[in-house]
Amino acid sequence: MSLPQIDHTHQASTTSWVESSNGHSDFPVQNLPFGVFSRAGGAAQLGVAIGDYILDLAGAARAQLLPGVNASRLMGSNLNTLMAFAPEQRLTLRHTVFDLLTDEQHRAATMPHLMPAEACELHLPAAIGDYTDFYVGIHHANNVGALFRPDNPLLPNYKYVPIGYHGRASSIRPSGIPVRRPNGQRKMPEQDAPLFGPATRLDYEVELGVWIGRGNTLGEPIAIGDAGRHIAGFCLLNDWSARDFQAWEYQPLGPFLAKNFQSTISPWVISPEALAPFRIAQPARPQGDPAPLPYLLDATDQTVGALAITLSARISTAKMRDEGRAPHRLSESAASNMYWTAAQIVTHHASNGCDLNPGDLLGTGTISAPSVDGYGSLLEISNGGKTPIALPSGETRTFLEDGDEILLTATAQAEGFISIGFGECRAIVVPAS
Amino acid sequence: MSLPQIDHTHQASTTSWVESSNGHSDFPVQNLPFGVFSRAGGAAQLGVAIGDYILDLAGAARAQLLPGVNASRLMGSNLNTLMAFAPEQRLTLRHTVFDLLTDEQHRAATMPHLMPAEACELHLPAAIGDYTDFYVGIHHANNVGALFRPDNPLLPNYKYVPIGYHGRASSIRPSGIPVRRPNGQRKMPEQDAPLFGPATRLDYEVELGVWIGRGNTLGEPIAIGDAGRHIAGFCLLNDWSARDFQAWEYQPLGPFLAKNFQSTISPWVISPEALAPFRIAQPARPQGDPAPLPYLLDATDQTVGALAITLSARISTAKMRDEGRAPHRLSESAASNMYWTAAQIVTHHASNGCDLNPGDLLGTGTISAPSVDGYGSLLEISNGGKTPIALPSGETRTFLEDGDEILLTATAQAEGFISIGFGECRAIVVPAS
Repeated sequence: MSLPQIDHTHQASTTSWVESSNGHSDFPVQNLPFGVFSRAGGAAQLGVAIGDYILDLAGAARAQLLPGVNASRLMGSNLNTLMAFAPEQRLTLRHTVFDLLTDEQHRAATMPHLMPAEACELHLPAAIGDYTDFYVGIHHANNVGALFRPDNPLLPNYKYVPIGYHGRASSIRPSGIPVRRPNGQRKMPEQDAPLFGPATRLDYEVELGVWIGRGNTLGEPIAIGDAGRHIAGFCLLNDWSARDFQAWEYQPLGPFLAKNFQSTISPWVISPEALAPFRIAQPARPQGDPAPLPYLLDATDQTVGALAITLSARISTAKMRDEGRAPHRLSESAASNMYWTAAQIVTHHASNGCDLNPGDLLGTGTISAPSVDGYGSLLEISNGGKTPIALPSGETRTFLEDGDEILLTATAQAEGFISIGFGECRAIVVPAS
Repeated sequence: MSLPQIDHTHQASTTSWVESSNGHSDFPVQNLPFGVFSRAGGAAQLGVAIGDYILDLAGAARAQLLPGVNASRLMGSNLNTLMAFAPEQRLTLRHTVFDLLTDEQHRAATMPHLMPAEACELHLPAAIGDYTDFYVGIHHANNVGALFRPDNPLLPNYKYVPIGYHGRASSIRPSGIPVRRPNGQRKMPEQDAPLFGPATRLDYEVELGVWIGRGNTLGEPIAIGDAGRHIAGFCLLNDWSARDFQAWEYQPLGPFLAKNFQSTISPWVISPEALAPFRIAQPARPQGDPAPLPYLLDATDQTVGALAITLSARISTAKMRDEGRAPHRLSESAASNMYWTAAQIVTHHASNGCDLNPGDLLGTGTISAPSVDGYGSLLEISNGGKTPIALPSGETRTFLEDGDEILLTATAQAEGFISIGFGECRAIVVPAS
């Protein structure tokens, strides 16, 4: 797979003249994620996160601060056009922005185009044409499979097929937008008929999102060796789930209303170029596992297909906030628990000719670690609701209560490189209508 | 449910001065479906079908032929804006177009804005934000359930939950665009591992499509009594399916690559107003079936929720075309075989707060009749591939061969009213890449 290379933009010794970006920021100059923001009352526009600021790309381009970049492509209100860039074009833009933010001589001219992030609103980065959710977290698949099908947790297709299904694009919202507890049908085994009402087993799921860059034409697959060129970046994704609805509705066609009431994503698009230093070998398949079928097998991808990203989920209840407590960590997992790589899910998705388009979003599915401190959902942590967890406030939880906030974060780390963060993916649960 | 009423536009005695619309056309003046067309080399624009012609709506509006209609809303290249109309606005437009095409005095002024349909290309009528496919054909659910789960054909949730799942919006194409046989994974029971290659059990499915009109805000459901106001119209839908892929991939999260390589729709949007005379009582639920839960129950809808529409599927093989044979009818079914109405699937979809938007498309799922001459897929007709059907050319089929064309048509009929048609939903199968 043709993947971005480590270059001068990853040097740990390089700092930006934007001082808040140096140190413990999610957004050092080695990151430079793209996003869409607005100022109070203003229109949505494209930006790059740097420390506590957002660089107004259109403004910088109009001021001739981004030489060699076609300014007209930075003028829109979403990243779809930029996502359609060839990786080489995106790299050029990265280098130009990097130079702007590291060379002290540009400071004065650039300052008017830096907006304090805390005064800005962040939006969905793209108009999402289609959203697909995969199921590549093998420990999650095992855990959930054991709850739904105790005799048969991992189905025979799992190690051949990157299992996925279509999700709902319209109800994806950026971090910060509250999620309303959904109403729906649930039926407990002891009941004769289902009831309709607010979800009683509301859950979150920790996922990565993969943004599609360049698309493919309907009928034309994407070779595994080219898949990396079709990925525009990554984000965090919370796939809110109503477990009571899911258990009742999911057969035979899969999850539907249990999942589509809202999904929350982190609004910054972390580029493949920024992630170049954090590529790691794909975790070896356990002895005896079948090799991927040839269309999913890329020798190069086997060594650099995974990413050294840690994923953290925290909860903050209303009582905890009243008491001034910090959010409580529910779990920490790693992207290396993905059984299939981002390249493999892209290639599988297009293998039948299905056309992917710039701004499409693929979810990885819940990325759980093998042990309970790394489980990526309350369904798993509470063992299907049977084992409540204790919070520092003295409260307990099996599933989410109104007023609970879930906060996902992620960090890419590698020896010798500056860590980069994903920003926040957070939302608070508000009562059902 | 507030549904369109029968009015003067449905009178059987009324004819248009467009002579080809009177008689056996799918598009008499009682129909007036909306669509998107282009002339050779021209841009896509909005039109109304009338007999063998298409009325150029923007041209007619610019020529002041559509009094009372906001011309700017007819200038786009898709129907999304028009679909967002309140039903009353759409009715006003219908009445205005009806007057134009029935009053002889408008003939001369209107003729320049009538395009011969055969010289036009038809496009997708809307930018489809999200596509959802339901499973409301109970005979299909029974037939397919018996093949996949002989002991348990109809799952316990079927008569409570209008089962649906998300489909792929990007790969929906209008009638006439060939469908490429997909590649994918299949595994026969006797094989140790799956193979990747062209589908060997390619099938069609006869469905109706429901176009969403006005949307709802995220978090706010649509009451069953209001659902009709959120429906902009209907079309035919062929949900092409690779049965070999489906059997292998569909557990636990439902169909994915078996379905999303292409779906074909008829390009004309048949409005609820045009269908007013064809509403019929919802088929009585069999004795002993549970009543719909209150959120899906509308007393009025029980009497006018179904539609008197017959659905026909025909096949034409390359050999049949070479021999000059007419397409061969595979089945004829009726929309009255829907267990849930269009209003019920809209309300169910939004019941958890999921936001529907103008131009979203809902498929009904395959609408099979109770007997084999009304089965809406080859999977059912051939009893899972075990019983080949004979064609007039001497050929047989269990599933589709390259060169086969599937043609779906539909007609709404009622005593005392002019029948209206849906136009064609056709596509030819081309070899795998």
